[in-house]
Amino acid sequence: MTQAHQLSPSSPASSASSASPTGRARLMDGTGLARRILAETALRAAALTARTGTAPCLATVLVGADPASVTYVRMKRNRCREAGIASRQVELPAGTTTAELVRTLTELSDDPGVHGILLQHPMGEHIDERAAFEAIVPEKDVDGVTLGSYSAMSFGLPGFQSCTPGGIMRLLDAYDVDPAGRRAVVVGRSAILGKPVGMLLLGRDATVTYCHSRTRDLSAEVRRADIVVAAVGRPELIRGEDIKPGAVVVDAGYNPGNVGDVHFDSAVERAGLITPVPGGVGPMTIATLLEQTVTGAERRSER
Amino acid sequence: MTQAHQLSPSSPASSASSASPTGRARLMDGTGLARRILAETALRAAALTARTGTAPCLATVLVGADPASVTYVRMKRNRCREAGIASRQVELPAGTTTAELVRTLTELSDDPGVHGILLQHPMGEHIDERAAFEAIVPEKDVDGVTLGSYSAMSFGLPGFQSCTPGGIMRLLDAYDVDPAGRRAVVVGRSAILGKPVGMLLLGRDATVTYCHSRTRDLSAEVRRADIVVAAVGRPELIRGEDIKPGAVVVDAGYNPGNVGDVHFDSAVERAGLITPVPGGVGPMTIATLLEQTVTGAERRSER
Repeated sequence: MTQAHQLSPSSPASSASSASPTGRARLMDGTGLARRILAETALRAAALTARTGTAPCLATVLVGADPASVTYVRMKRNRCREAGIASRQVELPAGTTTAELVRTLTELSDDPGVHGILLQHPMGEHIDERAAFEAIVPEKDVDGVTLGSYSAMSFGLPGFQSCTPGGIMRLLDAYDVDPAGRRAVVVGRSAILGKPVGMLLLGRDATVTYCHSRTRDLSAEVRRADIVVAAVGRPELIRGEDIKPGAVVVDAGYNPGNVGDVHFDSAVERAGLITPVPGGVGPMTIATLLEQTVTGAERRSER
Repeated sequence: MTQAHQLSPSSPASSASSASPTGRARLMDGTGLARRILAETALRAAALTARTGTAPCLATVLVGADPASVTYVRMKRNRCREAGIASRQVELPAGTTTAELVRTLTELSDDPGVHGILLQHPMGEHIDERAAFEAIVPEKDVDGVTLGSYSAMSFGLPGFQSCTPGGIMRLLDAYDVDPAGRRAVVVGRSAILGKPVGMLLLGRDATVTYCHSRTRDLSAEVRRADIVVAAVGRPELIRGEDIKPGAVVVDAGYNPGNVGDVHFDSAVERAGLITPVPGGVGPMTIATLLEQTVTGAERRSER
């Protein structure tokens, strides 16, 4: 990973490992990029609202009152408001059954006033998460959680992206990281993060390795990576000594205490580009969600 | 890959690399295993026919008269006959449009007398292959070509497997190759072979690397593999010198002249287990197709 990591096409190409005079990695500023995406999204939302008389609308569905989930949903609704996107809040008691949740999601899927549906997860263990996700119609799956959206990501077909993987790809693009021919190592294999981000990287011609809890020598795998995506939810699992000098390090982990899956202080000394936590991948996830909501509303208005 | 490659649970475990006194790899006998699967399948088909009065039925759909495709379809129909599975042959002219093909597949999907649908591919370039595949309902997708089947394979959900990947996993199981914790390298990333076999291996806890035409140093990737699946359709691309001693080599390539993607004569000297071409993966593909057809018919009879 020594070629051309640049902030914008107009800035000069520079070797990643020499990007900073101190030898430290350049930070991939997710907060700044997300702000630009949200500003564009707000303009599109305003134009659509002016043209159709109706603002794009995201329905947020929350089951129970898990504090982290409550916070996430509130953040998403706040960002919606700032971007001129209406949001409809559906709060269901913790004891909601799968059947009841499916019914709610089916109604939202059928509701012409709703353009995107966010089902906050994880939900309670008594809920069949897959059945719930699949009750969301593809045209409103702006969080990219359905099997259809996953397949679309896998095969490069039209569809909404899972928001964190989609946000990661936007971040790579913004820093001119071309995955083609590079070794990308994805640590984690969840349905909404690890698996789809690997498929997106494969679609961009990276040589992709999936690692996980059963991988025998994770350090050896990570040491070979030109691009590391940490998406496993284990605090500081990946240490600087395992980062290939100049590599691109994307930390999609979220753990208590604002700690990622990467040990930042050691990794920043070896990487060429690295996402901070917070301020890296996190803001990109929300920006992608809102952008896809407006896209959904635009498409609906064109039908 | 030094543990316990054994033909059956009752045979003694032995180191793969010492499996043969000459140091050559043991062959993974797809022909023999497929024969056993087909015999079981025939018993199940006979029982179902006796119970319901109707034989399981596979519809084969062929567009045009590509000689290889004609041969494949004929082989599949012959195997059906031997296994007591009815087959319904649909032959469409080469100029068939996507819309016409979709209509045919939709009719077969709706037809209660058809339990499985095989759409022979590749089809002509004027046909939207994805649209055609998606016209097959999941319950009859016994060839495992739809997006829904792919997602199911990716997430370990119930569904039919893509036949070649499913057959490969059966072959690994028959030789007691446990992918858990092993490095598996999949060469190729097609929708019906490379991508799904990687997902099945990942589901079995392998550390999975996808390689392809843009991979920079294929030899280096293959040399690290405990399990190699060659699925790219380039004759003898993978040479023995790149095979890790004792590795399991699965050659899913099919090229003119009965040549696989692996250079067999050199690979057999290094591998612990290897599939011959022909007689390795090929027969397993058809066996899986027929087995899944009977499973589809059994499920229908239970509804």
